[in-house]
Amino acid sequence: MPELRKDPIIGRWIIIATERGKRPSDFIVDRNHVRGGFCPLCPGNENTTPPEVLAYAPPGRHANQPGWQLRVVPNKYPALVIEGEIGKEGEGLYDKMNGIGAHEVIIETPDHNESFTHLPLERMTQVFMAYRERLVDLGKDDRFRYVMLFKNYGAAAGASLEHSHSQLIALPILPRMITSELEGSLSYYRYKERCVFCDIIRQELDQDVRLVTQNEKFIAIVPFAPRSPFEMWVIPKRHASSYVDADGETLKSLAAIFSECMRRLDSCLPNVPYNFVLHTAPLRSSSLEHYHWHFEITPKLTMIAGFEWGSGFYINPVAPEEAAKFLRNADLTEQPKP
Amino acid sequence: MPELRKDPIIGRWIIIATERGKRPSDFIVDRNHVRGGFCPLCPGNENTTPPEVLAYAPPGRHANQPGWQLRVVPNKYPALVIEGEIGKEGEGLYDKMNGIGAHEVIIETPDHNESFTHLPLERMTQVFMAYRERLVDLGKDDRFRYVMLFKNYGAAAGASLEHSHSQLIALPILPRMITSELEGSLSYYRYKERCVFCDIIRQELDQDVRLVTQNEKFIAIVPFAPRSPFEMWVIPKRHASSYVDADGETLKSLAAIFSECMRRLDSCLPNVPYNFVLHTAPLRSSSLEHYHWHFEITPKLTMIAGFEWGSGFYINPVAPEEAAKFLRNADLTEQPKP
Repeated sequence: MPELRKDPIIGRWIIIATERGKRPSDFIVDRNHVRGGFCPLCPGNENTTPPEVLAYAPPGRHANQPGWQLRVVPNKYPALVIEGEIGKEGEGLYDKMNGIGAHEVIIETPDHNESFTHLPLERMTQVFMAYRERLVDLGKDDRFRYVMLFKNYGAAAGASLEHSHSQLIALPILPRMITSELEGSLSYYRYKERCVFCDIIRQELDQDVRLVTQNEKFIAIVPFAPRSPFEMWVIPKRHASSYVDADGETLKSLAAIFSECMRRLDSCLPNVPYNFVLHTAPLRSSSLEHYHWHFEITPKLTMIAGFEWGSGFYINPVAPEEAAKFLRNADLTEQPKP
Repeated sequence: MPELRKDPIIGRWIIIATERGKRPSDFIVDRNHVRGGFCPLCPGNENTTPPEVLAYAPPGRHANQPGWQLRVVPNKYPALVIEGEIGKEGEGLYDKMNGIGAHEVIIETPDHNESFTHLPLERMTQVFMAYRERLVDLGKDDRFRYVMLFKNYGAAAGASLEHSHSQLIALPILPRMITSELEGSLSYYRYKERCVFCDIIRQELDQDVRLVTQNEKFIAIVPFAPRSPFEMWVIPKRHASSYVDADGETLKSLAAIFSECMRRLDSCLPNVPYNFVLHTAPLRSSSLEHYHWHFEITPKLTMIAGFEWGSGFYINPVAPEEAAKFLRNADLTEQPKP
């Protein structure tokens, strides 16, 4: 019998269509390639992007020249623009404002063919450090209230460039995802006087059926009510509402578990398109007792493009407990790259 | 400059990336075909579907035999099952219940090659009558709280069969889309003592910049803060919270405006994949002052598969006022079918 499950944070119900009992090999992974050709993110092409806002490179390297290991640049085709006033305005009953914001690209590697999943630990740690550095910096601009940080990998997940990169969009408003989570976790806190994410961690460690892996500072789980098959959440064990407060050791530990999760996913579903999104407290908010930062990793396996995004109602053909089992049992010995 | 706009009902912000100023012809319409081959929805194959729950046919026709104009059958591979108890249960902090529900397919035409868009008015009216009839019938089962009624057209919008059909899923819970709308419209009502949809109708008729078309009983608009380019909402002018209360004349009028909208869309973007979803009050709810039923039609043109569905944050490259202009100016003389 299929099962209906409710996300304990935002109250989203999903259908686990267990009858369909899919295994990883049952999925047709959409490996449509991202357009190749000239790559603006490769070393030597630094002049084809807007000037960098951050780079990790050995001393002595000149800005916007090769030699970097990681580079952050404004998006050449930004969804929002950095210059101007917010200009909040009504139009009858409607509300609008100028599209002020920042849209940046985090180039995770100089090597066009190196994937995020297979980055060495030290360099993956750099990626997470760069995220923090940009969030801290953009948080100084009090026009911005939130930074959406995300990665699209593969054409089916929305990537338009092959070269490994993530993106951030600094926004003058709170996106609905975060307001729903803040509200949901606050009602839970008011009722229980505990953080819902801390309770999830306790229950997942105790039940041990949706746990993918853990290390000293993090756990990775398949959530109880996932929208997509093989969805994973990476959550710090210690309560913290904002990513910007994570210290160097924490980010190193994050890189270790994240890398492991990505390799487990890649082993189950080679080269699967995916997204991940950082969920963190709004910029400059004080430490929140009810909210807990985390990453959500969602492989793109089912047709979630149409009806589901309009209705907020998802059908998942893989029970999270099954998905966790596959991910836990994944073979992590080096695979030939596809 | 791009613009940020807020949906007045559920508070979802979207970016109108006006700079990109796309015209209909700039979109690469994904016309990937739905799998052909044997069609279980065609006349003569009635025995390959579960027995019908409704059919419109001339008198004298036997059930589950050819001769019908419209036929409603349970989905052979249902997401939810009709038999059983709800069985609400906790699992630590999590909530779940059995996947009890109904999943039905509304076969809109016996002709495999006839499209919904080009149905004659009388037969499109039948489709809307069938929707109402199924909603009324399923509303008698007090295990169900909501019926999601929707259509997926084209592979990119999630259709898996070519033959023109829509679907419904009767649910023992309220999907998030509807709880958000009920809550949002209720806060508006508490503040203004007016229905937000009625206010939208007044403002759209007055401003006349996002209006696509209207008739005696309905308006069709491009909403102020649409998630997708060329999105349209069809709203009854007279306040009514539930679709099941619409009378025959209203459904005839609905068919007329819906047909016109679909032909306008098809003229701008031939054969574009799309979804539509009925938004209506929960089953058996009394008449609600703050809620107003309507349809939302969303063409599938942008990559909304990845980041956006996870974040609830959408980027729309076409200003709604521009989209409305294209749709208003569409050529409605008969097009050769693609």
